[in-house]
Amino acid sequence: MKGFTPYYAVIFTTVRAEGDLGYAEMADRMEALARVQPGFLGFETARSEIGISVSYWKSLDDIARWKENAQHLEAQRTGREKWYEHYTLRICRVEREYGFNRDPQE
Amino acid sequence: MKGFTPYYAVIFTTVRAEGDLGYAEMADRMEALARVQPGFLGFETARSEIGISVSYWKSLDDIARWKENAQHLEAQRTGREKWYEHYTLRICRVEREYGFNRDPQE
Repeated sequence: MKGFTPYYAVIFTTVRAEGDLGYAEMADRMEALARVQPGFLGFETARSEIGISVSYWKSLDDIARWKENAQHLEAQRTGREKWYEHYTLRICRVEREYGFNRDPQE
Repeated sequence: MKGFTPYYAVIFTTVRAEGDLGYAEMADRMEALARVQPGFLGFETARSEIGISVSYWKSLDDIARWKENAQHLEAQRTGREKWYEHYTLRICRVEREYGFNRDPQE
């Protein structure tokens, strides 16, 4: 996303509640839905003790629109009711980006 | 870190090379070292297919100083030589932060 700087990142750090309770299916669905929103640039996710998911966007307006998406609002509500013990959401402006590739042909 | 906004985040997204090759020991050592640097605010890490580590800092100067720390420079060099197939490092300004806790007494 280097050509896009400055762009925006949403860092979503979570501690899950016990049990799946539909979480995995929702997570896949929300990722697929985010990918087709205007201004979407990318998505990365990893989980061990905590989960960290980062979505990247062209503008703050794109993030605001995604936040208000009806299916996403429903997922946010269920997240607070069932899926998460704790979460922190941070809206960030990506100022600079550096990359490294072992195999430069890639 | 809510009281600190705006503050700064370094999002480090990695794809590991095969084998440990001293990686786990170095990762623990670098986390401990980061925690005692000036301006350090927090650290979060998770790994599944990819790894995402985010460190939080009071200022861009604090990040620049940490980048130039001698032991950290050595870790960065070994990272490119042995530990990582690929990485992306993003320097971000955290504009807003929201939190949720299931148990408000926590």
